[in-house]
Amino acid sequence: MTTAGATVQTVKIDAGEKISARDKLLAAAAALMTERDTVDVTINEVAGRAGVNSALISYYFGGKEGLLTALAMGAARVAVADLDSLMAMRTTAAIKLKHHIAGIINTFYAYPYLNRLLWALMRDTDSASARQLSNEFMLPVMRVQKALLEEGAATGEIRPTDPMLFFFQSMGACEYLFSGAFALKLVYGVDRIDDDLRRRYVAETTALFMNGYLTKPPA
Amino acid sequence: MTTAGATVQTVKIDAGEKISARDKLLAAAAALMTERDTVDVTINEVAGRAGVNSALISYYFGGKEGLLTALAMGAARVAVADLDSLMAMRTTAAIKLKHHIAGIINTFYAYPYLNRLLWALMRDTDSASARQLSNEFMLPVMRVQKALLEEGAATGEIRPTDPMLFFFQSMGACEYLFSGAFALKLVYGVDRIDDDLRRRYVAETTALFMNGYLTKPPA
Repeated sequence: MTTAGATVQTVKIDAGEKISARDKLLAAAAALMTERDTVDVTINEVAGRAGVNSALISYYFGGKEGLLTALAMGAARVAVADLDSLMAMRTTAAIKLKHHIAGIINTFYAYPYLNRLLWALMRDTDSASARQLSNEFMLPVMRVQKALLEEGAATGEIRPTDPMLFFFQSMGACEYLFSGAFALKLVYGVDRIDDDLRRRYVAETTALFMNGYLTKPPA
Repeated sequence: MTTAGATVQTVKIDAGEKISARDKLLAAAAALMTERDTVDVTINEVAGRAGVNSALISYYFGGKEGLLTALAMGAARVAVADLDSLMAMRTTAAIKLKHHIAGIINTFYAYPYLNRLLWALMRDTDSASARQLSNEFMLPVMRVQKALLEEGAATGEIRPTDPMLFFFQSMGACEYLFSGAFALKLVYGVDRIDDDLRRRYVAETTALFMNGYLTKPPA
């Protein structure tokens, strides 16, 4: 590991450039992963796309895994903040369930590489990346889902269910459109997931979970 | 590409050994992928595990991609045959829907590496593997789902829905427990998906889709 001070001297950057180059690297990695439908990108490809020296990846992120973790955590922080806002809303558990399902789909629409990043970074469950993503993303999502399901069960709106199994059902049903986009292309000739398709998937999948879990059919 | 005749001479096998070594290679690849929770295995690892000469992978499968495609197609053929049997059953669309959802989960339980194999082999949508898996697996599954949903809509049992979107909902909800098994381990400390967990997931997920799509609540 290079110390920050040593790297600053080597690549000659100042504080103003630092912020910009870091964001450029994250944006470049996101763009490459989205275009290529894979998280297998090299440090040189990311630096080349960002138009910055590849040494900056070590400087800002400590290496490629750090860059990928920072990218995943950026998406995770947005998703967890949205979830916290949702839970704080003064509305019924049924409406929260609907917004939550739509929110998962919208997260994967905004970050189509997110699920593959999670797989790549969490497969080694002993790694620091896996622990961070587990503690700061998976765990908060599961905690909010559990609270939402318990709130709905208490008011009689949602039939009692196992929050652990609900996590896999909801994540899977919402994200497979994105990670399985190859099937969209091969079987249906649909090359990209546009906003119209996103809206239709939100409508059909919120309906599945509302009908699937509410004790009374949605209005 | 080596011709079959030339390879037979080189590795000196007879017809009896052929069948056995081919199956050993497929079983070894399946075992390694299941144990390691990845489809990244080398030809030498597979041959070593199978206890056969690695040249046999070229002989039987034309190379690693051919081996992986054969493994995916083996699972696919079982799944498609089960689907055809299901559709031929003299029962209601509601019961068929229930068995179909259970069937998808049971397929991924039996072949936990199947979804990752599909991703690895179908990402290049122009490849021969992608076309074969699309034509002989994805397309038959989508065709049966469409027929099932239309049958249910005609009898009034199933509310009308878009079969394309249903495909992604059902595949995702059923398979994420397996491809997201790292989350089971990290957050819940569950190391493996045993038969009890499989049965609970079948129960909860068939309930989600029955409640979610049937016009009348299941009995």
